Amino acid sequence: MENELIKLAQKCKIASRKLAALDTNSKNILLTSMAESLNNSRDKIIAANETDLKAAEEKGLSGALVDRLRLNDDRIDSMINAIKEIVQLNDPVGEIESVKTRPNGIQVGTIRIPLGVIAIIYEARPNVTSDAAALCIKSGNGVILRGGSEAFNSNVAIVEALKSGIEESAVSPDILTFIPTTDREAMVELLKLEEYIDLVIPRGGEGLIRFVSQNSRIPVIKHYKGVCHLYVDKDADLELALNLLIDGKTSRPAVCNALETLLVHKDIADIFLPAAASVLKKKKVEIRGCGRTIEFIPDAKAATEEDYYAEYLDLIIAVKVVEDYDEAVEHIAKYGSNHTDVIATRNIFTARKFIKDVDSSSVMVNASSRFADGGELGLGAEIGISTSKLHAYGPMGLEALTTKKFIVFGEGQTRHNVEL
Amino acid sequence: MENELIKLAQKCKIASRKLAALDTNSKNILLTSMAESLNNSRDKIIAANETDLKAAEEKGLSGALVDRLRLNDDRIDSMINAIKEIVQLNDPVGEIESVKTRPNGIQVGTIRIPLGVIAIIYEARPNVTSDAAALCIKSGNGVILRGGSEAFNSNVAIVEALKSGIEESAVSPDILTFIPTTDREAMVELLKLEEYIDLVIPRGGEGLIRFVSQNSRIPVIKHYKGVCHLYVDKDADLELALNLLIDGKTSRPAVCNALETLLVHKDIADIFLPAAASVLKKKKVEIRGCGRTIEFIPDAKAATEEDYYAEYLDLIIAVKVVEDYDEAVEHIAKYGSNHTDVIATRNIFTARKFIKDVDSSSVMVNASSRFADGGELGLGAEIGISTSKLHAYGPMGLEALTTKKFIVFGEGQTRHNVEL
Repeated sequence: MENELIKLAQKCKIASRKLAALDTNSKNILLTSMAESLNNSRDKIIAANETDLKAAEEKGLSGALVDRLRLNDDRIDSMINAIKEIVQLNDPVGEIESVKTRPNGIQVGTIRIPLGVIAIIYEARPNVTSDAAALCIKSGNGVILRGGSEAFNSNVAIVEALKSGIEESAVSPDILTFIPTTDREAMVELLKLEEYIDLVIPRGGEGLIRFVSQNSRIPVIKHYKGVCHLYVDKDADLELALNLLIDGKTSRPAVCNALETLLVHKDIADIFLPAAASVLKKKKVEIRGCGRTIEFIPDAKAATEEDYYAEYLDLIIAVKVVEDYDEAVEHIAKYGSNHTDVIATRNIFTARKFIKDVDSSSVMVNASSRFADGGELGLGAEIGISTSKLHAYGPMGLEALTTKKFIVFGEGQTRHNVEL
Repeated sequence: MENELIKLAQKCKIASRKLAALDTNSKNILLTSMAESLNNSRDKIIAANETDLKAAEEKGLSGALVDRLRLNDDRIDSMINAIKEIVQLNDPVGEIESVKTRPNGIQVGTIRIPLGVIAIIYEARPNVTSDAAALCIKSGNGVILRGGSEAFNSNVAIVEALKSGIEESAVSPDILTFIPTTDREAMVELLKLEEYIDLVIPRGGEGLIRFVSQNSRIPVIKHYKGVCHLYVDKDADLELALNLLIDGKTSRPAVCNALETLLVHKDIADIFLPAAASVLKKKKVEIRGCGRTIEFIPDAKAATEEDYYAEYLDLIIAVKVVEDYDEAVEHIAKYGSNHTDVIATRNIFTARKFIKDVDSSSVMVNASSRFADGGELGLGAEIGISTSKLHAYGPMGLEALTTKKFIVFGEGQTRHNVEL
């Protein structure tokens, strides 16, 4: 397997060089052809998916997991539409920036280029196969996909369809490479191929992400979890704050930009907490609070230290009453996950300070944490969210899949006088 | 040692948060005070350096290495001036970019922030101690220094001086942390502290860099070597090309942006190569060429495959006559090191194609490879050169020591309609 993996990665790297040089029109034609091919392969994909579904049911996977795995015409439509939307996105490759002329007359600038080859390691959802492939290809990158075992047959069928859409183009179908095994040892081997793979993006649970980042010699974009905070300042507009709380906690509790912890300034706790409790209860949210929280919400559960670290992804919220702004910021620094944190305040000085003091990848003033999403922030589609600071930080769109190289134009300038 | 290292790194991380929030004026005052303190500690530093020099001579280090190690008043002046130049540089932290208003009225932008804590692992030259510390601090980052054993006493004295310059400021001297051992095991322990250190930059030989990147859980900025090419196209201005060749090869052969390989289009080889050989010989450069090179330079040595991979850092050049442009580009892709590659051509189409086809971190048209340097490219000082594409690519100035977070301002916008 090791040699086979090297060969696959090598081929992808070689093919990616041609892809990197394609202009945007050619890449868009390629993506459109991939979308059409997906459309023409519906039957095969759904048949393969049924094999996966059967196996999942036999294995006794939960209903929610089986549902995530399921493909039907609607879901294939979504995959096709996602590719079409990626066709519409602005291509960052080739953008020239900050061109300056130096005192000696050389002109210096930077130009955006693809990273090369990106490996995506993911779990259940088969739609990641087409979404990730399309984003990587639009940004000029070769892509190596390693999906989970539950969706193996579905993934193989999707990749076959996508690859047949590449066949008649100017580049080799090797730009899209699927790892034909879900074996963990093979994944570890893959993560050593730094010569051919430029970036690894794991998408899935914390366990998968830790495993990948501890075993990889290739740079990894990490997103462990989203423990997002709303801090309701003493100068907050309390109705506005309540709206942010309810949207953040209840509009979709299972996603990473949902709120997990509410921090409330002590000066307004007596008004805000009872009002919040009443709406949270109506929405069936369990409240776990500190001692002072329980003074205002007597039927709240007592929060433990673990509650403040928890990413519930469920209708539960941890609540803490803080002495002052500083305690709120310290709490976020200690328990937060560098994902998204929100302040509700009318006070411009406090807002400006919060922007500076909180170093999460998305910091929001009077807006819902649920906007921490590539689409909502205007990046177009999103390949993931990075909560570590290297290369990309926060929601990653196409630009995060590129880098910049320096370009220099001269008329023969040399650094020292040359005597021939 | 392990626990001690963790404590040091932890303290640096905590101190770095205050540093990150300092405005540019405060950071400049801090740096100026560090420079003054260096000036006041000359005697101590020179005395410590003498201990290192004596040990180096006893160990039988080469004259060049001993010279690199030596500190005198002139070299301390240079260190002080380097800090003063860093004071003058534009501070990237706080720059707000690409602010857009989304259809729902939220305002989305990005703001530059420091990375956090940067570890610099370096070899002989003691001036790296003050240069790297100043660059990291100017960009708002805590810095952990781990120097080589040859310069240990010099480094300790420099760090003491710099830290006493921090003492009277708003931040803790912990922002500058020196690892008090040159033990390899301790370095390996340091490279595991991903919780406290955000980036590792190794500066030194290929062995050190490979060791660091293979043992690090923290992202590493890599720069293995500079195998820089000059391709003299059939449409080149030959006198211009000769100037680039001589500047690139002979102005400072021991640096990474010096030329190592000359590629010559076959159509102009008969004119260019004899002219090049005559000047190269005058400059005492040894020529190692392919078969066709030797036709035009009969006394050239025969080049082996290894010659085309070699970073000579010496007065030696590998030469190859190529069939056409494509062969030149393929050669660079195969043997190059993603550092700097140059084309000499009058033809705008060939120049534009070269910019696209060669994915080195600096690609130059009719300008010397020796300009691949932070100062020459206008970045101000340089902390290193990255030849891998993640996070930074090419010469790294202050901006490469920062990242961007998303900021969002709203008036209570939510993603879904909230019913209270």
